[in-house]
Amino acid sequence: MGGVRHYSPPPQNAIPAAKQKYVPTSGTYPKGFLVSGTHVGVKPTNKNTPDLAFLASETPCAAAAVFTKNKFQAAPVTVSREMLKRRNNSGIRSVIVNSGCANAVTGKGGMEDAEKMGEEADKCFDQTNDGKRGSSIVMSTGVIGQRLPIRKILQGIPAAFDALGSSHDHWLTAARAICTTDTFPKLISRTFSLPSSPSIEYKIAGMTKGAGMIHPNMATLLGMIATDAAIAPALLPTLLTNAVNKSFNSISIDGDTSTNDTVAVLANGAAGGKEITSESSEDYAVFQKTLTEFSTDLAKLVVRDGEGATKFVTIRVTEAPSEVGARKIASTIARSPLVKTALYGKDANWGRILCATGYSQISEPGQAINEVPDIIPEKTSVSFIPSDGSPELKLLVNGEPETVDEVRAAEILEHEDLEILVRLGGGEQEAVYWTCDYSHEYITINGDYRT
Amino acid sequence: MGGVRHYSPPPQNAIPAAKQKYVPTSGTYPKGFLVSGTHVGVKPTNKNTPDLAFLASETPCAAAAVFTKNKFQAAPVTVSREMLKRRNNSGIRSVIVNSGCANAVTGKGGMEDAEKMGEEADKCFDQTNDGKRGSSIVMSTGVIGQRLPIRKILQGIPAAFDALGSSHDHWLTAARAICTTDTFPKLISRTFSLPSSPSIEYKIAGMTKGAGMIHPNMATLLGMIATDAAIAPALLPTLLTNAVNKSFNSISIDGDTSTNDTVAVLANGAAGGKEITSESSEDYAVFQKTLTEFSTDLAKLVVRDGEGATKFVTIRVTEAPSEVGARKIASTIARSPLVKTALYGKDANWGRILCATGYSQISEPGQAINEVPDIIPEKTSVSFIPSDGSPELKLLVNGEPETVDEVRAAEILEHEDLEILVRLGGGEQEAVYWTCDYSHEYITINGDYRT
Repeated sequence: MGGVRHYSPPPQNAIPAAKQKYVPTSGTYPKGFLVSGTHVGVKPTNKNTPDLAFLASETPCAAAAVFTKNKFQAAPVTVSREMLKRRNNSGIRSVIVNSGCANAVTGKGGMEDAEKMGEEADKCFDQTNDGKRGSSIVMSTGVIGQRLPIRKILQGIPAAFDALGSSHDHWLTAARAICTTDTFPKLISRTFSLPSSPSIEYKIAGMTKGAGMIHPNMATLLGMIATDAAIAPALLPTLLTNAVNKSFNSISIDGDTSTNDTVAVLANGAAGGKEITSESSEDYAVFQKTLTEFSTDLAKLVVRDGEGATKFVTIRVTEAPSEVGARKIASTIARSPLVKTALYGKDANWGRILCATGYSQISEPGQAINEVPDIIPEKTSVSFIPSDGSPELKLLVNGEPETVDEVRAAEILEHEDLEILVRLGGGEQEAVYWTCDYSHEYITINGDYRT
Repeated sequence: MGGVRHYSPPPQNAIPAAKQKYVPTSGTYPKGFLVSGTHVGVKPTNKNTPDLAFLASETPCAAAAVFTKNKFQAAPVTVSREMLKRRNNSGIRSVIVNSGCANAVTGKGGMEDAEKMGEEADKCFDQTNDGKRGSSIVMSTGVIGQRLPIRKILQGIPAAFDALGSSHDHWLTAARAICTTDTFPKLISRTFSLPSSPSIEYKIAGMTKGAGMIHPNMATLLGMIATDAAIAPALLPTLLTNAVNKSFNSISIDGDTSTNDTVAVLANGAAGGKEITSESSEDYAVFQKTLTEFSTDLAKLVVRDGEGATKFVTIRVTEAPSEVGARKIASTIARSPLVKTALYGKDANWGRILCATGYSQISEPGQAINEVPDIIPEKTSVSFIPSDGSPELKLLVNGEPETVDEVRAAEILEHEDLEILVRLGGGEQEAVYWTCDYSHEYITINGDYRT
């Protein structure tokens, strides 16, 4: 096979120069939340990088989470889902996360470990006497098929609690503690207001980690979002699901969906104001929009840090008869290895984009075809939208290929960012996906990790 | 991005040493079929490599074809499908194929070109007076979005007809003429017998081309199979569809399905014997098995020549409640970039295999979930089956990870061939897929093709 390179992870805490701009130097964080990132050494080789993140609310709060749909669900996914169900999404105190080991495919022992991790976090808070077990969401990311070094983690939780704080540095350290092969911590914070309480400045902050585990398994996506707005627990799951479908579920690094993916939102109401209690209220609509935009910006950071990525590509499918059909097409283009390698090669290869569009609705032989009649070749157009605001470059118009100015195409593809616009000419719905390219480095990271 | 390499296609006709063993030095070919591979120079840069293949039956014969399900279908696909429909799969005289240009996304002009190509081939034969237009199947493979140099092709067809012959060299040259970036011609021939005529030695021969177009577009899969058995035209489409589902539709190089994919079978009855006229006959069952096995061996050659491939991997999913469910899982594992890069890295990474198994039945948000309850984590097992006949290496047994002997795993992964066996423990159905790995070379070929 020749030419196999060995991958060395970047030196600890060394953020690549090109990624520095995505790491905030300050932030505005929600009231009543405290965070820490501390070192427990989940991996024996990890001597001082933080690998335990703790997010705590000063008061019991509302929380919801969406979990991977992978059939093989890691122990913390099962434990957290059941806890949230038992509590009807209320009375939650914290999120406890370790990196370095995913506690996935670890059998009954792994389930007990995840339970213990949550219980140890619970002990840090006043015990409620409501008879319901558990008040902490548990997340793990890292190697699969290995047991957690649970004693180390349990011993580390009191120290993690002692280290809690609300400064920007606390948030950034926590964001770093959940990273695996991420090259930079992913943290965003912002303020918003709600129509019913125009004088209150609400805050929302969140962190995520993404695409990249070298040794030995898979990319896990974790996300934690906290806000000091007051939201009825019953409304939070739908708000989060809607937000995630348009953000974390609209990104693709390589189409692989891990056993551990979890995104959680916590709302403690510490900023005051009126609680959002109805789906038909103006506040609800504004918060939904806020949460969706916030989640989208967090999710985009995951794509920015895709393994080996050199490109950040927005795939927009418009003029579709249905959003579901548009999503399927966008997702198929985003996953196409031929599209992704063409992007890496800076190649204006609309044929591959069209090809992926065309096979997006093929199912396996024998499988029921759930075909949405979204694609009419003679009405389909494909363009590049340059990231510098210059005019679109039309590649295909109503099914007829354009004579492409290759010099112009090359200029557009020199930029890190690009939008691929597919117009279906058959409706008014649209969907957006974000993805990156496949580079030699992707193969190196995922194929040559052995040291 | 750095490190971009430029890809040089292998020198003409230079078959890599490792692939020589897949190129036959002799063959037994069906009676009454003549073939040629000639040079017309579809690409101006092609000065002498054969790029026009002609397969003719001495008498009008039965034929069927399966075509790509891509919504953007190339002109020759439309033209050939309509011709076969008009003729009810009988009275077919030839298959005419060019490489170098796919005649895809070429509008009305492209459709006319494909029609003309078929008509020019038809002119080589006695005209039947049945009033039905066309008797030739047309195929094209190569660049998309460019018009065929149709005059060159039309002028070349009489010479292609004059060059027809039945020797092994004729067949091999034709197999070479349909290649694009294939590194070797893919040709198989064999004999078989049918229960009703035990004294007749029937023959079947076929050629295919696969996965690889550098400049600039996509992999197209073409296949042509000819037999001198007599088969009723009405039965041929089902025979071929069944064979293709278990062969050409069970391979994956990168999951991209092209605009031009076509596999055709022709049966001229020149060997004599009884015509197969009933689906319930013994002859039918034997021929179905013969055609399926033959197609499978042809399809495997495509995987052997996958772009940049260093591995040939059989994915077998057994003990499934349904074949459809098993196929979906096998196909998902075969497409997983994390599995494919792990194979390239010779990594016994069962976590990635399990992960792909687990997400195989996830659909897009909002899409109807056609979920088959095939996967029960506690009953799922994963093993490597070594290609040297040594015992299987168990990686996961009933959902519990095994302690893997890494030395043994490394030995198994040193071989080019490997079988990944996933036992679902929930039924008696199975499905098999064949795939290859993702290498640096795959990225180089598909990303760096610009010269």
